[in-house]
Amino acid sequence: MSYGEITYEAADGIATITLNRPARLNAFTLEMAHELIAAFGEADADDSVRVVVVTGAGRGFCAGADLERGAGTFDKDEVGEVRGFGEIDGVPRDAGGAVALRIAACKKVVIGAFNGPAVGVGVTMTLPMDIRIASESAKFGFVFARRGILPEAASTWFLPRIVGISQAMEWVATGRVFDAAEARAGGLVSRVVPPDELLPAARAIAREIADNTSAVSVAVSRQLLWGMLGSATPWDAHRADSRALLQLGAGKDAREGVLAFLEKRPAQFPGRAGSDYPEGVPPFPGEP
Amino acid sequence: MSYGEITYEAADGIATITLNRPARLNAFTLEMAHELIAAFGEADADDSVRVVVVTGAGRGFCAGADLERGAGTFDKDEVGEVRGFGEIDGVPRDAGGAVALRIAACKKVVIGAFNGPAVGVGVTMTLPMDIRIASESAKFGFVFARRGILPEAASTWFLPRIVGISQAMEWVATGRVFDAAEARAGGLVSRVVPPDELLPAARAIAREIADNTSAVSVAVSRQLLWGMLGSATPWDAHRADSRALLQLGAGKDAREGVLAFLEKRPAQFPGRAGSDYPEGVPPFPGEP
Amino acid sequence: MSYGEITYEAADGIATITLNRPARLNAFTLEMAHELIAAFGEADADDSVRVVVVTGAGRGFCAGADLERGAGTFDKDEVGEVRGFGEIDGVPRDAGGAVALRIAACKKVVIGAFNGPAVGVGVTMTLPMDIRIASESAKFGFVFARRGILPEAASTWFLPRIVGISQAMEWVATGRVFDAAEARAGGLVSRVVPPDELLPAARAIAREIADNTSAVSVAVSRQLLWGMLGSATPWDAHRADSRALLQLGAGKDAREGVLAFLEKRPAQFPGRAGSDYPEGVPPFPGEP
Repeated sequence: MSYGEITYEAADGIATITLNRPARLNAFTLEMAHELIAAFGEADADDSVRVVVVTGAGRGFCAGADLERGAGTFDKDEVGEVRGFGEIDGVPRDAGGAVALRIAACKKVVIGAFNGPAVGVGVTMTLPMDIRIASESAKFGFVFARRGILPEAASTWFLPRIVGISQAMEWVATGRVFDAAEARAGGLVSRVVPPDELLPAARAIAREIADNTSAVSVAVSRQLLWGMLGSATPWDAHRADSRALLQLGAGKDAREGVLAFLEKRPAQFPGRAGSDYPEGVPPFPGEP
Repeated sequence: MSYGEITYEAADGIATITLNRPARLNAFTLEMAHELIAAFGEADADDSVRVVVVTGAGRGFCAGADLERGAGTFDKDEVGEVRGFGEIDGVPRDAGGAVALRIAACKKVVIGAFNGPAVGVGVTMTLPMDIRIASESAKFGFVFARRGILPEAASTWFLPRIVGISQAMEWVATGRVFDAAEARAGGLVSRVVPPDELLPAARAIAREIADNTSAVSVAVSRQLLWGMLGSATPWDAHRADSRALLQLGAGKDAREGVLAFLEKRPAQFPGRAGSDYPEGVPPFPGEP
Repeated sequence: MSYGEITYEAADGIATITLNRPARLNAFTLEMAHELIAAFGEADADDSVRVVVVTGAGRGFCAGADLERGAGTFDKDEVGEVRGFGEIDGVPRDAGGAVALRIAACKKVVIGAFNGPAVGVGVTMTLPMDIRIASESAKFGFVFARRGILPEAASTWFLPRIVGISQAMEWVATGRVFDAAEARAGGLVSRVVPPDELLPAARAIAREIADNTSAVSVAVSRQLLWGMLGSATPWDAHRADSRALLQLGAGKDAREGVLAFLEKRPAQFPGRAGSDYPEGVPPFPGEP
């Protein structure tokens, strides 16, 4: 595929998606949203891709919705933002949410690498990523209340599950911009590194996953861990993992995993996240 | 309104509710519960109020249920505590829960400022507050198991969502009293300050919110963030925020928010949390 | 009862369960699973037991599934692991999940004391424990993706609720082994102590609970705190605690708790977790 507002590269098991409107600090557009959804589809469909790293070109990660349209930016009647993502319950789907929920449904591990400011949808769309790390020059802001709108991209569901309801409320109610150290202390990112160590650090995590783990195992784990966040009872997990364990336990990756461990050598897992995905594992909930 | 066991003041966008039985360390009574519910109603109905700060008069925040009635304190047949808060599923509603759920339903940001000991219902009723900060002289205790009762005020729902299930179980199972530093480390409060800096700190947070944000945006955000804590799927958030964004995005606060940002000036949001609240935003769940 | 792969001792209100296959680092077997379930049943049935401490004999806590059966270890057709734990939705129940859900349903506080490595099911089965503390020599690993299987024992439900989804995903996706300090930083354990202080520390927590709290209060609190983790709304907690408070408030433990407090003496609670458990308290959800 070809992209205009992002770039997509895949090599050695790692796909890198780069938000690529550096002159606008990679501000979010409808076109970018469509391209992100397509890029995650490409990563999911490519069994050679084990991990997706998302970062930004230039000084910023994503400055949020592009405000160059002025006061009517968030008025869908005025800017025609209703088109392209379908409807939900009779209203146009929020574009940020369409991206976030596509990321949530991904079968690969997703790592957000914040090279600079991530504000508004620039941060909310990253909440369904699995691991977030930041450069010391990153900044964050859930600035919606300072723009007269609300936290979107399904972030009212994701954010309290990541940083806790108290931290979520403080960031959202004040709408203030905060630095990487505060993001780390609050649990929004797990690590802060000097700017030139950011992509190497993200790729080192990706490398560790790609080199040592079964693609099928990771895909199933990702669906279940996120999916069970919304489940009323651990018996749902027991039901799902009993079924999946029966299949994976009899599979070729389990044989290789145990043998490699006993033989004290690196495992070479033959399974593929696409064709070897077990039946009956509930996908991330609510996908229409 | 006039209150006997609390005081209520509103000025410059901030309502301050002070528990006011200092001779009893502001121990909780049924009358205090009724007054708290009324005071939150007053704050909600007043569009000029943006943030509610709750604190205690004198040395304590709230010593928990007033035990001056002795051994039968918690025996509703003996003390007639059944009256006044209605029933739920055929049993009298717990008074602490009536207060907590009223706070949960509030459309304004609520800040708890712990000036001294907060024990039993004195802490559980504060769990639905958005931000909690403490004086160095504050103490906390989920002492229910040491009194032969159980954590009430719906705290078995709120507490694990705020501090995690492991910390919640440790505090509840031991029932011990702990200091502000431990409350901070465990995530129960977000900041600990010297005693004379407590109210200034609470008001500074309130000020930042009142001066910079849209009342409607904050009200909607509060309902959704707390509400989605209990939701099974992020698609519920996507549904709700797509609908709310359609309305708020076309509203006057969004126009002002974007314009003010582009013009690099403070925003003056005209919207009101009461009359401009968008349709279709699910209120905090389960309100009967 | 007599056990072969664990030991069970009860004294002074504390039951100690020790995983006891030290020559295999207490690797998990089906027999061990059955014995653990029986031991928790024994602890639950004994009103004199207030707290259960679980630890391992020798250098390890539990090395995970015993791999001595080789490549087919996780293939239930090959090893006959289907028998003994019943079925769920037509598939054999995972043995680790059978243990974990038995621990979740326990009416006593459960403390995990990690004396050494806890890997695979060796750590997932401990997630429903209330308090986890570790020796400096403990190590942990959610190594499933490195064996070609998936996190079981209903851990996809428990783990994100204990350490947050981001930390859960990082540990599960990499499958790497990490030390006690990282477990502490990530919220998996609440304390790390020198090896010879581990059991004394676990017993000191148990002692504080056993000596100061009502058995009924703690049993009810445990069911509600864990149970409300999966509940959609705090009104469920309000409903349950209003009903339970009506009963416990009129009970003998509440009278003793208040009197002892007013008389500034230790309470002597007469209530028993078995026979005095109040009606209408929802048990941990989903128990079939």
